[in-house]
Amino acid sequence: MINAEIIAVGSELLLGQIVNTNARFLSQQLASLGINVFFHTVVGDNHDRLKTAIEIAENRANMIIFTGGLGPTKDDLTKETIARHIGKELIMDQTALESIELYFKRTNRVMTENNRKQALVLEGSHILPNDHGMAPGMVVDSGSHIYVLLPGPPKEMEPMFLQYGCQALSSKNKSKEKIVSRVLRFFGIGEAALETEIIDIIDSQSNPTIAPLAGDGEVTLRLTAKHVDEAVAQTMLDEVEKTINQRVGEFFYGYDNTSLLAELTKSLKERKLTITAAESLTGGLFQQELTSIAGASSVFKGGIVCYSNEVKQHILQVKPEILEKHGAVSEQCAKELAENAARLLESDIGISFTGVAGPDEVEGKPVGTVYIGIAIKGRPTVVEKMILAGTREANRNRSVKFGCYFILQNLKESQNAK
Amino acid sequence: MINAEIIAVGSELLLGQIVNTNARFLSQQLASLGINVFFHTVVGDNHDRLKTAIEIAENRANMIIFTGGLGPTKDDLTKETIARHIGKELIMDQTALESIELYFKRTNRVMTENNRKQALVLEGSHILPNDHGMAPGMVVDSGSHIYVLLPGPPKEMEPMFLQYGCQALSSKNKSKEKIVSRVLRFFGIGEAALETEIIDIIDSQSNPTIAPLAGDGEVTLRLTAKHVDEAVAQTMLDEVEKTINQRVGEFFYGYDNTSLLAELTKSLKERKLTITAAESLTGGLFQQELTSIAGASSVFKGGIVCYSNEVKQHILQVKPEILEKHGAVSEQCAKELAENAARLLESDIGISFTGVAGPDEVEGKPVGTVYIGIAIKGRPTVVEKMILAGTREANRNRSVKFGCYFILQNLKESQNAK
Repeated sequence: MINAEIIAVGSELLLGQIVNTNARFLSQQLASLGINVFFHTVVGDNHDRLKTAIEIAENRANMIIFTGGLGPTKDDLTKETIARHIGKELIMDQTALESIELYFKRTNRVMTENNRKQALVLEGSHILPNDHGMAPGMVVDSGSHIYVLLPGPPKEMEPMFLQYGCQALSSKNKSKEKIVSRVLRFFGIGEAALETEIIDIIDSQSNPTIAPLAGDGEVTLRLTAKHVDEAVAQTMLDEVEKTINQRVGEFFYGYDNTSLLAELTKSLKERKLTITAAESLTGGLFQQELTSIAGASSVFKGGIVCYSNEVKQHILQVKPEILEKHGAVSEQCAKELAENAARLLESDIGISFTGVAGPDEVEGKPVGTVYIGIAIKGRPTVVEKMILAGTREANRNRSVKFGCYFILQNLKESQNAK
Repeated sequence: MINAEIIAVGSELLLGQIVNTNARFLSQQLASLGINVFFHTVVGDNHDRLKTAIEIAENRANMIIFTGGLGPTKDDLTKETIARHIGKELIMDQTALESIELYFKRTNRVMTENNRKQALVLEGSHILPNDHGMAPGMVVDSGSHIYVLLPGPPKEMEPMFLQYGCQALSSKNKSKEKIVSRVLRFFGIGEAALETEIIDIIDSQSNPTIAPLAGDGEVTLRLTAKHVDEAVAQTMLDEVEKTINQRVGEFFYGYDNTSLLAELTKSLKERKLTITAAESLTGGLFQQELTSIAGASSVFKGGIVCYSNEVKQHILQVKPEILEKHGAVSEQCAKELAENAARLLESDIGISFTGVAGPDEVEGKPVGTVYIGIAIKGRPTVVEKMILAGTREANRNRSVKFGCYFILQNLKESQNAK
């Protein structure tokens, strides 16, 4: 059985400049590999303190995973400290060096001497390539302990672990019991309400376990099953999922790391529909998130950010009398914005967001007032009104999610009506 | 001198269900109180493992701050473990008990027997009232060590610490030395290149210390000074900052938690200039980030997301021959997009983003090719070409940052030219 400890190296963590999201990510990943995690440690960029942290970890874990301290500068000393501690040399890895040189060539930047340091690796280690940065990761097996060295920036560490680390570690795991996890995502229902609906199912289960978690206006249920046979574990998850969704299936929208926007994009592609947006409240957030998904161009040609009344009137042709009589934050304005955007941008669906993100009220309407207009070709335009209670940022995020949710509901209904 | 260790107790942290934001919050607070933090530890809801974690912490710290494990359920065992370890009794605190009873009355919920457990406190401890929940906090001084017990939920812990904890701990801090920190932010230079420029300054300094950190395409330097007089510490930081910026000041853009977009917004407000954007590559990211800053409406009226050639041509009036001859990812197209957006949206500045975000190449141009057009009223339009080497998401983020950086440089130059 592998018991792991995660050691994050970096004084910036001890000063509270950044939060240790790496420990969370790795803990989730290790659980899914069937590897126990009993401790997280954070230590500064200091050779002696790092050394004692390693010694303590060696007494209580047989796998030690380090994040951070692999960079080019003098205070990056993770691999130097481990090398000295376990009596291994640091040697230049030609592949890593070439990849660093290529990185500089490709980005037209001048490589400095200390960047070469990043290509130094522990002798005898299994290299984990860094596809999103320079410092490679390493796995070293000393016989008694497995040392895993990963870079600190999450944008490098996470893809490295998923692409190369998972496989390297699962080959080390001799335990026959597999931990299989599945996340069910819900929108439009609160955590307490969801839990109340299924509390008897949660209480009667120990394998799989069911763990609710709320965040970003969504609720997720993490189902975790243990079994030597992964296929059996999956079937156990299927059964629990079915029982849960008999109760709250109307709010379920997807699995694991999907998002409402990803589901919307998938749904539009299947139906060969295009979408556009007129964003006031959300200032481009809907379009930005939509286009963050590769391949969005097949459903999205473009849209308008109409932050001022001038742009609503001159570019999106909202009638001046609507703005005068009802204001920009109104059902009438949301309707015109959605319909006119669809027409001007020649799209099947137009969505509009207008409202008061905060911190100040607008047109005498309170912070959190939101109108979302949805114009789908061949159907009457719908405008949904909501009052949200979060910060400026949360209200904008929530609005985009509600927008996606309303369109998905609308498309489902129109399918059911056929 | 107080050296603190922060121990978070909770299996949910080791399973990666939540991230340890408490450690970050407390680290920041302790630094401002002049208390060093050398280690963070996370341990599960397990008596034996918590006990060894306490023993290890006692060997390397004289203040141990615990978060979590003060709740009503059976797996909440922080105060029980500490009581046994340091030989103190748990006694019922009447004030805490009354406050818990009141809490249930106020929220119309039924109080269960295990909730009484939350009013048990370590004998002889200084109580920190919980204004946002039930479990009170505690400070216990054993002579050799100070033990601080805080609840796990950040919404309870943070206000408790600010309201009551800060004062209780600063009275324990006999050291009069204050730690003052300042972050300098740089863009357009890599971490290794920056360090090479100032390595002699870093090496010759021990107070203030200078710590470089890279992330999201930016580099920061954290300067930390210690002195009994905070004003003197600030002056020490001023002097080091001046020396550093004599070398690399051209890349410096702001302090602490600012961002390039926040600096751009500030600069536009000062100059009473408005801006608009035509975003292809970035799909609305620039506008979304701009409008995430409250008060953006004084510099931004709106803009266009022109993801397809149709929108570039029909809405932004890019000449068909430019798209045919040079393509959408070209200097010529970036120029027209920026200029036409500024004209159509009646803004002083138009910025455009066109390029290949990935994963596939476009028009035979490789992933990472980016053109940013900047049209400032009364000045010739500038188009910057770059080759970026990140993921789709990183390339889009980096492009927005470069866009802000180029405009800021341009505005500075035009000011210097006067």
